[in-house]
Amino acid sequence: MCLFCKIIEGEIPSYKIYESEKVFAFLDIKPVNPGHVLVVPKKHFANLEEVTPEYLEAVMLAVKKIAKHLKEKLEVPGYNLILNNDPVAGQEIPHLHFHIIPRKEDDGLKPFPQSEYEDGKAEEIIKKLIIE
Amino acid sequence: MCLFCKIIEGEIPSYKIYESEKVFAFLDIKPVNPGHVLVVPKKHFANLEEVTPEYLEAVMLAVKKIAKHLKEKLEVPGYNLILNNDPVAGQEIPHLHFHIIPRKEDDGLKPFPQSEYEDGKAEEIIKKLIIE
Repeated sequence: MCLFCKIIEGEIPSYKIYESEKVFAFLDIKPVNPGHVLVVPKKHFANLEEVTPEYLEAVMLAVKKIAKHLKEKLEVPGYNLILNNDPVAGQEIPHLHFHIIPRKEDDGLKPFPQSEYEDGKAEEIIKKLIIE
Repeated sequence: MCLFCKIIEGEIPSYKIYESEKVFAFLDIKPVNPGHVLVVPKKHFANLEEVTPEYLEAVMLAVKKIAKHLKEKLEVPGYNLILNNDPVAGQEIPHLHFHIIPRKEDDGLKPFPQSEYEDGKAEEIIKKLIIE
């Protein structure tokens, strides 16, 4: 059983903040900022490709509710919602989990750096990506 | 009308990759990595607090579909899904938008640094955050 499945089952203790029929949310014990929360489906899905629409909807409605609550209770002006999908993207536990990271002014967190497309490169990529 | 509403209406050109009744997706012209896509509801909502469950569901099902497509077509092993909610979190356009950022090994992108709670601090925070 995966680490998060054990946490959901109560086999491993956690700082639980919310639970519903399909969703479980708890503090990340290695927070980026205090109050960093993980929101997971109670059924095991490795990632966004695997999760069913039913569980995805339940997780996102919980994220919406928890994030609003967290802004109010922690009195923060915003947050990042992050899904690291697959190990290359930083996913450490193979059980779909959304990070809600409360943000404060001057917390020093830097977003990923952006660049610009070279001439013709966006046109080349778009040809691969269009979904009719 | 906001920048993204103008893009959705076609008043400002974009590299559109997908459109449905409720959702629009296009290339971010300042990509973190090539193929960086933005997915937005076609109705204007500033952020996650404002979006209706109906539009949130439509957006997330589109994200799931587009992200899978992007992994296959760009042949990348994963991606980050990011919502910067509110200016403090890096939100530049006040129209809800999810970033899908394709990732490659050794692309040099660094996640936010993590820390640990001092003794008693997690217990203090959890008291504020529990949703019964």
